[in-house]
Amino acid sequence: MSEQEMPGHNRWHPDIPAVVSVNPGDIFRIECKDWTDGQIKNNDSPDDVRDVDLSVVHVLSGPIYVNGAQPGDILVVDILDIGALQGDEWGFTGIFARENGGGFLTDHFPNAAKAIWDLQGIYTSSRHIPGVRFAGITHPGLIGCAPSYELLMQWNKRERELVETGGPVWKPEIPPLAALPNPENAVLGTLTGSEFERVAAEAARTVPPREHGGNCDIKNLSRGSRIYFPVYVEGAKLSMGDIHFSQGDGEISFCGAIEMSGYIDLHVDLIKGGVEKYAMVNPIFKPGPVEPRYSEYLVFEGISVDEFTGKQYYLDAHVSYRRACLNAIAYLQKFGFTGEQAYLLLSSAPVEGRISGIVDIPNACCTVAIPTEIFDRNILPT
Amino acid sequence: MSEQEMPGHNRWHPDIPAVVSVNPGDIFRIECKDWTDGQIKNNDSPDDVRDVDLSVVHVLSGPIYVNGAQPGDILVVDILDIGALQGDEWGFTGIFARENGGGFLTDHFPNAAKAIWDLQGIYTSSRHIPGVRFAGITHPGLIGCAPSYELLMQWNKRERELVETGGPVWKPEIPPLAALPNPENAVLGTLTGSEFERVAAEAARTVPPREHGGNCDIKNLSRGSRIYFPVYVEGAKLSMGDIHFSQGDGEISFCGAIEMSGYIDLHVDLIKGGVEKYAMVNPIFKPGPVEPRYSEYLVFEGISVDEFTGKQYYLDAHVSYRRACLNAIAYLQKFGFTGEQAYLLLSSAPVEGRISGIVDIPNACCTVAIPTEIFDRNILPT
Amino acid sequence: MSEQEMPGHNRWHPDIPAVVSVNPGDIFRIECKDWTDGQIKNNDSPDDVRDVDLSVVHVLSGPIYVNGAQPGDILVVDILDIGALQGDEWGFTGIFARENGGGFLTDHFPNAAKAIWDLQGIYTSSRHIPGVRFAGITHPGLIGCAPSYELLMQWNKRERELVETGGPVWKPEIPPLAALPNPENAVLGTLTGSEFERVAAEAARTVPPREHGGNCDIKNLSRGSRIYFPVYVEGAKLSMGDIHFSQGDGEISFCGAIEMSGYIDLHVDLIKGGVEKYAMVNPIFKPGPVEPRYSEYLVFEGISVDEFTGKQYYLDAHVSYRRACLNAIAYLQKFGFTGEQAYLLLSSAPVEGRISGIVDIPNACCTVAIPTEIFDRNILPT
Amino acid sequence: MSEQEMPGHNRWHPDIPAVVSVNPGDIFRIECKDWTDGQIKNNDSPDDVRDVDLSVVHVLSGPIYVNGAQPGDILVVDILDIGALQGDEWGFTGIFARENGGGFLTDHFPNAAKAIWDLQGIYTSSRHIPGVRFAGITHPGLIGCAPSYELLMQWNKRERELVETGGPVWKPEIPPLAALPNPENAVLGTLTGSEFERVAAEAARTVPPREHGGNCDIKNLSRGSRIYFPVYVEGAKLSMGDIHFSQGDGEISFCGAIEMSGYIDLHVDLIKGGVEKYAMVNPIFKPGPVEPRYSEYLVFEGISVDEFTGKQYYLDAHVSYRRACLNAIAYLQKFGFTGEQAYLLLSSAPVEGRISGIVDIPNACCTVAIPTEIFDRNILPT
Repeated sequence: MSEQEMPGHNRWHPDIPAVVSVNPGDIFRIECKDWTDGQIKNNDSPDDVRDVDLSVVHVLSGPIYVNGAQPGDILVVDILDIGALQGDEWGFTGIFARENGGGFLTDHFPNAAKAIWDLQGIYTSSRHIPGVRFAGITHPGLIGCAPSYELLMQWNKRERELVETGGPVWKPEIPPLAALPNPENAVLGTLTGSEFERVAAEAARTVPPREHGGNCDIKNLSRGSRIYFPVYVEGAKLSMGDIHFSQGDGEISFCGAIEMSGYIDLHVDLIKGGVEKYAMVNPIFKPGPVEPRYSEYLVFEGISVDEFTGKQYYLDAHVSYRRACLNAIAYLQKFGFTGEQAYLLLSSAPVEGRISGIVDIPNACCTVAIPTEIFDRNILPT
Repeated sequence: MSEQEMPGHNRWHPDIPAVVSVNPGDIFRIECKDWTDGQIKNNDSPDDVRDVDLSVVHVLSGPIYVNGAQPGDILVVDILDIGALQGDEWGFTGIFARENGGGFLTDHFPNAAKAIWDLQGIYTSSRHIPGVRFAGITHPGLIGCAPSYELLMQWNKRERELVETGGPVWKPEIPPLAALPNPENAVLGTLTGSEFERVAAEAARTVPPREHGGNCDIKNLSRGSRIYFPVYVEGAKLSMGDIHFSQGDGEISFCGAIEMSGYIDLHVDLIKGGVEKYAMVNPIFKPGPVEPRYSEYLVFEGISVDEFTGKQYYLDAHVSYRRACLNAIAYLQKFGFTGEQAYLLLSSAPVEGRISGIVDIPNACCTVAIPTEIFDRNILPT
Repeated sequence: MSEQEMPGHNRWHPDIPAVVSVNPGDIFRIECKDWTDGQIKNNDSPDDVRDVDLSVVHVLSGPIYVNGAQPGDILVVDILDIGALQGDEWGFTGIFARENGGGFLTDHFPNAAKAIWDLQGIYTSSRHIPGVRFAGITHPGLIGCAPSYELLMQWNKRERELVETGGPVWKPEIPPLAALPNPENAVLGTLTGSEFERVAAEAARTVPPREHGGNCDIKNLSRGSRIYFPVYVEGAKLSMGDIHFSQGDGEISFCGAIEMSGYIDLHVDLIKGGVEKYAMVNPIFKPGPVEPRYSEYLVFEGISVDEFTGKQYYLDAHVSYRRACLNAIAYLQKFGFTGEQAYLLLSSAPVEGRISGIVDIPNACCTVAIPTEIFDRNILPT
Repeated sequence: MSEQEMPGHNRWHPDIPAVVSVNPGDIFRIECKDWTDGQIKNNDSPDDVRDVDLSVVHVLSGPIYVNGAQPGDILVVDILDIGALQGDEWGFTGIFARENGGGFLTDHFPNAAKAIWDLQGIYTSSRHIPGVRFAGITHPGLIGCAPSYELLMQWNKRERELVETGGPVWKPEIPPLAALPNPENAVLGTLTGSEFERVAAEAARTVPPREHGGNCDIKNLSRGSRIYFPVYVEGAKLSMGDIHFSQGDGEISFCGAIEMSGYIDLHVDLIKGGVEKYAMVNPIFKPGPVEPRYSEYLVFEGISVDEFTGKQYYLDAHVSYRRACLNAIAYLQKFGFTGEQAYLLLSSAPVEGRISGIVDIPNACCTVAIPTEIFDRNILPT
């Protein structure tokens, strides 16, 4: 990425220079590398996933300067189309090693694993997870406008405080609580010299979603959706990347979507002064009309009780969703999948993860819904 | 409820006697009172919500003894139909007072409020929330089999420990962390005397969902769905109640669904030894084919940063979903709804609450999706 | 029907007296007998279908006088709910004998046949067609306002001319081309004496759909739909009946829906002067949001070439749809269904019949789409 | 097309040589010209539509020889993806002049007209029909295997007989009843000399759909669908073309889809001996899972009574669908569209055309359903 003629970036900072400018009303195409900048290969060894250098991620295309955009405006972005690059129709899903990134179920699946997916038009299948085939709900895992300097400082402050004060009691020691600014392997567009040093030291990592959107990993930001972004800096400075051919709600194995390079066709427009008009805090969006349509789901429930200790947590949707996913994985293992395969599948297939009940003290109830049509066999209880 | 010829119950215990028995393959109808046993009235004052006696809830119909059911079996329950009782076509949604029950956003909306809904076939509208009308996704908020004695003891133990050790840092002092066993107002079917005393002292409250299902408040357990329940005691002892004409994911205002009395048409069957065969922990289900079908949603995002203090939480989906809901409420207020109206609407309309990203340290990303077609005006940003 | 306290009617005429009046804005329930007035029984013999007296059909509930309705207005009718009567949860589908009614494929299936359906909440299955179960898309086969006298005379004139001049060349001699006015077994509400004689001689049969709607047999007029009817006479005089638990597009076996008695919950309103404002000829409607949702269909094509003679017809969608249905029936016979069973199934299950191409001289292309999920086995080619 | 290195063809004949061969299991991309071979231009004059040379159509890509395919096999074709060619993202919809092609409503709209569509990812809009925007359901209008010589002779015979014996009484003198073999402008792949002469004289025109599929113009053969074709000749000889960005059921204005050039990604496989095994006559297909999803439709009914003469036709779905379309056009004109615009819109937008009732003598009832979300204004009656 750093060797491109028009380099992208892999950190958030208002002072990363825009690479192009567009006008409201314009339609244009962006191409993106996969989020690891090509570290993961189309082969059968998970060693590249195990050894991935996370200081490199996420490599983003942009920033795009939108003429006329001012702080307080809403940037309206239509994802007109999105897809793989011709000749590069494959993707990967990984389980990160507990020591290097981890994931939602890292205490259950601490070792690196990988599935390679063949992309065949709207469908995908994997030689590493036989017996499933599904249509992708392709989307950018990461998209958003540059933060203002003030907002960036808020991010850095609150995330540093979290690292200093510690997380919830169920949090294992590794992986870390947050990814704080790290100049190592920072790519900051055309910045060089002392300006590069300054920005690299301040710039936020791209891992978490934040007020501006960013790495939301929302599978429904797919083909045809319209997203309303708050603008914080002049020109909006829109960036994106981390294209997913498909993903389940939660993207649970962390490198859990079907990660790929690809293109996005965009249309942009502005709503002047829209942030105040609509009391906007985070982005808002309208999903598109061509999400894959399934009619039969098998749904697993989870409650906020720890699976190892039996400890009761208070309305903890994180724990509940973990239990729901573990229940689904245990079930799928009865149909011939390994635990890792089931974990990768829940991460990457178009599964729905819902907060079903969040008020019935002390248990939150979360559900994970798997479309049964993605399997080549009947997976209902009989 | 306690005055009925065939009394129901409002606590969970394996020793509550069954009221009827059915055979696998049978089709039958159950009628249920609303979950508060008639405490809330069809009028414009929220005083009954404010003063509700929660020791009475949830009044359940059952237990139903299924002939041949043994611990370790799966009880297959089809919800063939569900609806309001003729002549009683109305429901209520309440915000509980912070001092008496509270709810998901109790720090923002501490006072009792109430909306009455007119049920008109598949549709509903409320004189207290003008400008919206939608089709219900009617379901029993609460359904499940009686726990074994061992499981009951586990529940009591872990919930008591939670009350003793305390909840997460963001938990306000009231409402309480859990609803522990409480003999006051217990209804235990036909039990009397010392047996009543013993069971009332041990029996679990019905508020939380647990391993057996119970008060899951899953909106998708609607008309036509098939549920697979683990059986813990001979005869399964199936009970249900808390019928919701409609509910949004999370049922956020606690008394948040459109609560009503009604009937449920059921079909039951058994999968012998199914619990082990399918590694079942919690119930599994297959939603029905007639959920209301919407195509356009407006979706709000939330991240796990506290709205009052700006404190960063670690992958806390509870906080993220709260922020998503608050963002939606702030937005809807720009279209003429009061905060209370918007809160009640998110609780009761068929909104989708999703865990979109749960691995992007340190922010979970949750979304709440509102079907735009329920409004009589255009609520998209323009 | 004629013995009811409030008799209905089985002919169309503006002078049939209204049985009740309602106001715009009213919500009310109508109960209807099955369209044959109880001639078909829940047993295994098709003799009642063979011997059905068609001079009796369709028995309708109404007319309902809507206060304020004037010719030229639009009557807005919401079907709020619709269902079977409690205790009467069964229906029938029949193939009429060629000599007594016939049907779409009467040259292929000339003998009477019958399937009885058990209604189980939203689902149905038949002991006469094992291996299928589906959710109904329940609707009134027949609904509409009374014609004006002028319109009635037009109907009678054009239908008589058809009988006199003959039909298309592919039309077999029996069944007849049209059902002309027939006083035998006419039920005309409370009319008696010479007025009864006059009206019975003029009144149109209820078989065909016409400008006012009437016996359209549109499966999508289901729960939650809103219909806009042209008003021709003072008070609109709305009538309805012929309730179908389910039906496939075309209702091809003539008595092809799952016919039942039942109730309909209605809401009515008026758009004054709407007929001219919206250039309305026939009724317009908006389907409801709870039609059964299927995602996988198997679709059969047909072209307008006669199956017996190989004769080419010109863009004849009737012939094309017949060929598509015959292709589907031949296919289903390979999966163990008899031809009659497949015919009855296409008539009654929620299949989609589409005019796919109507301009590609000389062949129209029609398709019939069957949801694969209604079968208990895999019916895809393998 | 005739100047291409690998020429395609614009007639059907078993002896047109294959241009490539593939193996069962192969995935490959086909590119297609628009059906008129570039005669229609992206401008505002309908003269090119008026003057189109129909002896040129349809220009097809193929035939593709599938190794191992034998008569009696089923060729399984997956449409993995389909889209416009980069840099050529536009399409056209035309009304053919009555004197040169005509169309479904040629008596109402006898003059040539044209709409140009801008393709923007999944969406399209037209400067010639302001106020509408929709997602395409892109598909090949024409796809099928070469006929056997015997089948070809049947086609020619029956179509010639139709021309000789005449069509239905409502058929105007022009356009013609069928397009008989015509050597003028025939393109037959690499054939030359006397073999070209022979084949050109015998080869069937591509206009009508027939037993092999061909120009079915089925909008649901979209992205992700699987089609089962009967094989008549060794190698199957699959051809396709006439790509439509979008089309309404019926493609009523004849050049009624949004016609474009484009690519199709295919996967092919064989079911040996499948034609007899599945009693296959015409192709069968399973639609894909990513058709645009709409939830609100406005539906217009039509019956088989002639709009000019009031003459009653017998269960004539052609006439009924014409009346339904005319009713829709009259309605849309009340919302500011011209008749031509409404006609073009019904042809090209994703509208559903259904045979709702086909047995209620003497009127067939057809419906046309328009998704209301494609309009930028409310088009419901109010």
